[in-house]
Amino acid sequence: MSPKKFQVGVVGATGAVGAEMIRVLHARQFPVAELHLFASERSAGKKLATPFGEKEIELFSVEAARKMDFVFLAVSGSFAKEHAPAIATDGGAIVIDNSSAFRYDDAIPLVVPEINPQAAKGARLIANPNCTTAILAVALWPLHQAYGVQKVIVSTYQAASGAGAEGMAELKNGVQEYLNSKQSGHEIFAYPLPFNVIPHIDTFQDNGFTREEMKVAWETQKIFGNNKLAISCTAVRIPTLRAHAEAVTIETEQPIDPAAARELLKSAPGVKVVDDPAKLEYPMPLTATEKYDVEVGRIRQSLVFGDHGLDFFVCGDQILKGAALNAVQIAELLV
Amino acid sequence: MSPKKFQVGVVGATGAVGAEMIRVLHARQFPVAELHLFASERSAGKKLATPFGEKEIELFSVEAARKMDFVFLAVSGSFAKEHAPAIATDGGAIVIDNSSAFRYDDAIPLVVPEINPQAAKGARLIANPNCTTAILAVALWPLHQAYGVQKVIVSTYQAASGAGAEGMAELKNGVQEYLNSKQSGHEIFAYPLPFNVIPHIDTFQDNGFTREEMKVAWETQKIFGNNKLAISCTAVRIPTLRAHAEAVTIETEQPIDPAAARELLKSAPGVKVVDDPAKLEYPMPLTATEKYDVEVGRIRQSLVFGDHGLDFFVCGDQILKGAALNAVQIAELLV
Repeated sequence: MSPKKFQVGVVGATGAVGAEMIRVLHARQFPVAELHLFASERSAGKKLATPFGEKEIELFSVEAARKMDFVFLAVSGSFAKEHAPAIATDGGAIVIDNSSAFRYDDAIPLVVPEINPQAAKGARLIANPNCTTAILAVALWPLHQAYGVQKVIVSTYQAASGAGAEGMAELKNGVQEYLNSKQSGHEIFAYPLPFNVIPHIDTFQDNGFTREEMKVAWETQKIFGNNKLAISCTAVRIPTLRAHAEAVTIETEQPIDPAAARELLKSAPGVKVVDDPAKLEYPMPLTATEKYDVEVGRIRQSLVFGDHGLDFFVCGDQILKGAALNAVQIAELLV
Repeated sequence: MSPKKFQVGVVGATGAVGAEMIRVLHARQFPVAELHLFASERSAGKKLATPFGEKEIELFSVEAARKMDFVFLAVSGSFAKEHAPAIATDGGAIVIDNSSAFRYDDAIPLVVPEINPQAAKGARLIANPNCTTAILAVALWPLHQAYGVQKVIVSTYQAASGAGAEGMAELKNGVQEYLNSKQSGHEIFAYPLPFNVIPHIDTFQDNGFTREEMKVAWETQKIFGNNKLAISCTAVRIPTLRAHAEAVTIETEQPIDPAAARELLKSAPGVKVVDDPAKLEYPMPLTATEKYDVEVGRIRQSLVFGDHGLDFFVCGDQILKGAALNAVQIAELLV
């Protein structure tokens, strides 16, 4: 008997995350019987080259999507909100949604497979976390289990890819424009990103934090199942292309030692310890881009929290662990 | 009687910081009788256009430098260590040194004029702080005075200019190279900087921190005259040209409120509050570059330290407040 294969749909296949979902499904040999790509009228009928062969994009409809076994949504939160529940109801497909639409809904699991795989069991609609959260969480979880993380202070170095393929294109074109004329236009980002730093991602909340910053706090608490974990984030867009970096300081309940933390992280799934300063080894977008594992390094005793604190640096591919890879890993839990 | 004017020497006038010192001396109408530019044999004899007119670079000697009233050193720490004391001894010049050579010497004052101007009084050799430190310190000091800062966690976003004009050139050329060929060379930085993030500035210490990170801790403690202040820094080079940004979290002895902190900072010297998210106003290299004031914004109640904590973001010109401006301000204290 051959192993079961599945009808798999991807909605938003022409975007940066959707395209990467298809590559990851193929690379990880997800048991795909047939791949269906769905889009709006604007893209339907177009042909797309994929590792599964050339595919014609089909017009999205709830009915068509319900015929799938798995549907990956790499589209807006409003689209997901409107259609995901109808796709997922009994007899429909299992939906894995990359938007923030359902992440804060207590009835919908929010899953990082290395952390809370049990939350996905039996669910028909599952939320994929924010990219910055997923990258932070895989490194933080083993430390939390062993030492009881109580406080997290994180400053991010987020790539243009967080704003999709258009964000990456705006940065590349803008950099060339800047080199030619010392200025560059902008549409995707609030200000020109080339040679700049923009401490503003997503909308501002009443408490002065951006929604991106609050997502890191809300989602990490939900994934860890611990709403006492205190997290303060500063989310910053910088002129890099697709890997996010994060400077992290933690305070722990138990005393924590950099050498022991390093050893612990070496055996943690989804994590690659890159931490040998003498050999110039530390996490960077240059090395973390297009990798599945999140790089963790610069592990050292915090000078603020002493033997109950650690400073470290992480870097992970925003489109992979930050989006497409995590979504496919969720589906893998359910086959 | 006309006000007194001074013989002013700049050593290292062809570097990024030296050139900016000359511009700042002119822009702030420092009472310069004659400007002398000193360099090694390699540059001596060359002509340099300055706001004070074209100047021929003179061969550096301690004897020539001692004839000045003020000597600004924008050279290496080893050069400063070798020559600064001999220039400054009685009958010589007052020396303001931009290197780290004397910053940790208890006998030598380390001065940010907005904070500890009294330390400069009567001194003949004065150290100018590290760029990241100076930019942080002007924003931190008013908060420290009013609320008693106890813990500081800072993550930096440091520009290529911290490695001098060569660093800026390497980034600009490298970005063009990357756009053409998807890779770029590097000599100044440990890795290619274009579209990358490098969590490594200066050498690594035994405690896992870089010297750059420790400078922020050591120097802030010395300038504030408070060695109980706990500071943990992550210093990160990013692909920007000349303004450094810093994400800062503080814990304070007294309860602290974002609105009150914002008002306090509005009247602080050397600081410009840029903090109106609704109008998309926050600190950025785009706006802080070539400005004297350090921009402070994104001021909000820390989610980790509650009503005894604040998160904020600063951005300041690395070559100005981070180097040349602060050095000239020190000289202004002494005329």
